[in-house]
Amino acid sequence: MSANPAIENYGELVSLDPLVNLLADDMKAVNAMILQRLASDVPLIPELAGHLIAAGGKRIRPMITLAGAQIAGGSAHAVGLATAVEFIHSATLLHDDVIDESNLRRGRDTANALWGNEASVLVGDFLFARAFELMVEAGDITVLGQLANASARITEGEIKQMTIAGMPDTPQDAYFDVITGKTAILFAAAAAAGAKLAGANDDDVAVMHDYGLQLGLAFQIMDDAMDYGVSSSAMGKNTGDDFIDQKITLPVILAWQDGDANDREFWQRTMGDGNFADGDLATAQAILASHDAIDRSIAIAGDYANAAIAALSRLSSPGQSQMPIIAALAAAARFSAARQN
Amino acid sequence: MSANPAIENYGELVSLDPLVNLLADDMKAVNAMILQRLASDVPLIPELAGHLIAAGGKRIRPMITLAGAQIAGGSAHAVGLATAVEFIHSATLLHDDVIDESNLRRGRDTANALWGNEASVLVGDFLFARAFELMVEAGDITVLGQLANASARITEGEIKQMTIAGMPDTPQDAYFDVITGKTAILFAAAAAAGAKLAGANDDDVAVMHDYGLQLGLAFQIMDDAMDYGVSSSAMGKNTGDDFIDQKITLPVILAWQDGDANDREFWQRTMGDGNFADGDLATAQAILASHDAIDRSIAIAGDYANAAIAALSRLSSPGQSQMPIIAALAAAARFSAARQN
Repeated sequence: MSANPAIENYGELVSLDPLVNLLADDMKAVNAMILQRLASDVPLIPELAGHLIAAGGKRIRPMITLAGAQIAGGSAHAVGLATAVEFIHSATLLHDDVIDESNLRRGRDTANALWGNEASVLVGDFLFARAFELMVEAGDITVLGQLANASARITEGEIKQMTIAGMPDTPQDAYFDVITGKTAILFAAAAAAGAKLAGANDDDVAVMHDYGLQLGLAFQIMDDAMDYGVSSSAMGKNTGDDFIDQKITLPVILAWQDGDANDREFWQRTMGDGNFADGDLATAQAILASHDAIDRSIAIAGDYANAAIAALSRLSSPGQSQMPIIAALAAAARFSAARQN
Repeated sequence: MSANPAIENYGELVSLDPLVNLLADDMKAVNAMILQRLASDVPLIPELAGHLIAAGGKRIRPMITLAGAQIAGGSAHAVGLATAVEFIHSATLLHDDVIDESNLRRGRDTANALWGNEASVLVGDFLFARAFELMVEAGDITVLGQLANASARITEGEIKQMTIAGMPDTPQDAYFDVITGKTAILFAAAAAAGAKLAGANDDDVAVMHDYGLQLGLAFQIMDDAMDYGVSSSAMGKNTGDDFIDQKITLPVILAWQDGDANDREFWQRTMGDGNFADGDLATAQAILASHDAIDRSIAIAGDYANAAIAALSRLSSPGQSQMPIIAALAAAARFSAARQN
């Protein structure tokens, strides 16, 4: 892994490790609560949801929920809230895989490939309902309202994504609107909710919201950029999935904007009309490279990572004991925009 | 429409009309709030959800929410809560139609037939999230928790329904377990939540929960019985849908239990193995008739309707002003088990 040159060099760590290490005990409790709250007299529920959740992923959303709480001194309910956030995220993954007809996620068969779309829709609904039960237990109705609102905005983002599918001439604004809704809003709500639950003042809650928003944008842009470049085994998803799914992301938008008539004809035939031939993915990668579209996307992700770090500097006079978690959040932001080879 | 002979004759009305009339103003407010809360900068959301919700249906769930509140003198937040309950119900309908691959609901094309499964999954998720936003505004976290729990149990009921599909030897217990989850729990939670929000005492909240539960069971059993008997135009759904979908319901369970080897061979080939031939639906109807299975199902629905009415008699000394709404709830219970021709 190499640092993203677009991120200013503070001489500091580019890694998720400090966050993982600082939150290890709480995340152990989150993992235990995930298993406990998947319990149901319907065996399919823990089986299917467990398949998805056990596959892992970075668990970055519950971690920033917990980190948000630690910024304000922690909360006894933070573990429950972090579990709720992971359940909301897992529900959207199950529904996304139905929508995308994906067969591979995190290097494993998707739940819908194994159990069918029906089960994935219903277990997603179950996780969503359980998330709200967990938030009720956390006891803060304002926090609950913010996560309910975030949930509505996630679906709006995903519907917008659906409506720009197959349109390679999508403007950048529309793309940022999509990824703000489908990804960044949950990061923002998670970080802010953690802080709010732990009693942070309104300014710090707003700072954590901003941190999460910028981090989520960086994270999603990198995910979209890496979809064209890294092998299936490393990412746990298929390289070129977005291409075949006609999902318009930043690299393609940049290459379209700079492209000549031949380029645009190619994008229109493939991602526009869904008319694919052998070798098209390699051609797409070559066109993206000729416009430096992947590296430029990564640079933009770096700008958002920097904005996330800048947000942290606005926290109201944190105590010495908060410094490690703030440094860890900064390292995580740098990591989010770091090229993973 | 004729009264169900299984319901004891109290010399009283068998009709939804008193409830509709008493709640007309509130339901007008619910309908206005439905439209208002479907608003989104994603035009597909009000379009798709509006298609489903404008098709109408009896709106029985928001009505019993409002009635539950009126039992305890009403609440300024009852309209919002009733809207939330209708949104939860609408979300499950959108997801059900995806799961069942239905093409017709309430006499109109289903949303998934018109807009595709992807949109139906996402707009269902949106409605679910909006429901929780509305409940947050209602401000009672206990009520919210009960509806979150009901939502989880709905999905459990639907998953159980999926797992008994194609099993004509399903025991009655499993069927009642399914319909309790997928239908009756939301009726129960709606009636109880309305009462709780309006400040009813715990005993009355429990009574309204019981009323809703029994009403929901009667309602679903009648729906399942009518699926074999009434034309598509009257019910707004296709006669024999459950048969073709291999969805095992009470009439088939009764006919299987009483059936001989020939009957069972027929049920196994059709609903068990999904091997259908022309004329099979007529044969199914004839076998059901030979075992009196539709009328026996209706009689069982009548027992639940009676239990719902009996629950109302346990309300703690209602005032004179509550009498009309209680009588209306009783008439609605009788209506729920009345054969509709």
